[in-house]
Amino acid sequence: MRFTAETTSDGVTERLFTLGDITGALWSPADAAGDRPLVLLGHGGGQHKKAPPLVTRARHYVTVCGFTVAAIDVPGYGDRPRLELDQKLTPALRRRVASGQQVDPEITRGMAERAAKAVAEWQTTLDALQDLDGIGTGGPVGFWGVSLGSSIGVPFVAAEPRITAAVFGLTSHRSVGEAAGRVTIPVEFVLQWDDELVPRESGLRVFDAFGSQEKTLHANPGPHSAVPPFELESSARFFLRHLVK
Amino acid sequence: MRFTAETTSDGVTERLFTLGDITGALWSPADAAGDRPLVLLGHGGGQHKKAPPLVTRARHYVTVCGFTVAAIDVPGYGDRPRLELDQKLTPALRRRVASGQQVDPEITRGMAERAAKAVAEWQTTLDALQDLDGIGTGGPVGFWGVSLGSSIGVPFVAAEPRITAAVFGLTSHRSVGEAAGRVTIPVEFVLQWDDELVPRESGLRVFDAFGSQEKTLHANPGPHSAVPPFELESSARFFLRHLVK
Repeated sequence: MRFTAETTSDGVTERLFTLGDITGALWSPADAAGDRPLVLLGHGGGQHKKAPPLVTRARHYVTVCGFTVAAIDVPGYGDRPRLELDQKLTPALRRRVASGQQVDPEITRGMAERAAKAVAEWQTTLDALQDLDGIGTGGPVGFWGVSLGSSIGVPFVAAEPRITAAVFGLTSHRSVGEAAGRVTIPVEFVLQWDDELVPRESGLRVFDAFGSQEKTLHANPGPHSAVPPFELESSARFFLRHLVK
Repeated sequence: MRFTAETTSDGVTERLFTLGDITGALWSPADAAGDRPLVLLGHGGGQHKKAPPLVTRARHYVTVCGFTVAAIDVPGYGDRPRLELDQKLTPALRRRVASGQQVDPEITRGMAERAAKAVAEWQTTLDALQDLDGIGTGGPVGFWGVSLGSSIGVPFVAAEPRITAAVFGLTSHRSVGEAAGRVTIPVEFVLQWDDELVPRESGLRVFDAFGSQEKTLHANPGPHSAVPPFELESSARFFLRHLVK
């Protein structure tokens, strides 16, 4: 893991890093000492590791919870080379994919390959993060990611025993169904009641599918992108409940 | 309103009161000075104003939020004379009523009459509470009540413009449907995903029916009586968000 930039403002130190092809960002308390819980953030479609909502979330978890927070670019986004796949993914096709409808098999295969690659990259990143001072092997690790962040995050968390609490949401049963059943850690699951991309029934089916004993569904009115700000605060308390002993 | 007993422990003063036929309890910070938000608690079936979960909730809202909290006995419960209706309500019948199934019309009429009486009693109680020092007319008022607390609370809140935020839950569409549409204030709505009394679809339909612009659904696994403890904390933050400017 190679750090390429470091800035500190309002008590939060932000470091950009590369790890092979992976590009990421790491936020921690400016006065950090000793190991602390880590939360990984998976960005949404069309976003990247430093999209404004992600930075706001990272700073909230650092300042309110005292966590270290990391985000990486999904292949094709942010500082990663653009992919041919994304040139084919018109807005209409993206909507079809997000709502779990059938699309051209080549597109489906491309999306699945990207997701599998992103999962492997999260595992590589987590290995490297746990070698850093202030995180450490064996400490509690949480994952937050909705929409594309869940399409990648649910299979990642299902395969990764180091993650002990996760916030997912805004995703259809077709996108994550089989992997959701293998998730057994505490989950907070966020849905939008009038989501134009994720049919209500399909979202509720994902909640139903999680294998977790503790899972809590938060649904709010409005479209896909209108999750209310109080859900950020709620997710922070969820992580505090599960990552701090 | 006549106070009949007063005790103080761990910073909370508890006063029992009567108001005509109504019997109630009032909790406030022991060092209270000045007006503060008021939260009304509607107890569940088979409970009463001082049932242990209600007292725990009242003390939480007083100590964590600094609110004044009041609860009254529903006619037939607690310190109220028993009703002939409740002698007819066998456990099996209670389950049928709670799950929104048809029962003997005489029972249905009795339940509706009790609910109407309880709504009127809440209005009388709120009038008297707002005459007290430390509450005051025009201050913010919230309502919390699930199960029977919602069967009475939803029509009460629908008819009572002084209530500005409410937590409901564990109730079927048949119990509250029409009144839910007339509720337009912010609502937090709690459902149990495996509720043996309230069918999942019927509970979700109640959430859908609320006329509120801000409404948030919290669903958790488990039976009717197993709402997780973190929902108490969540409701406190909901009331803080809406009752404290």
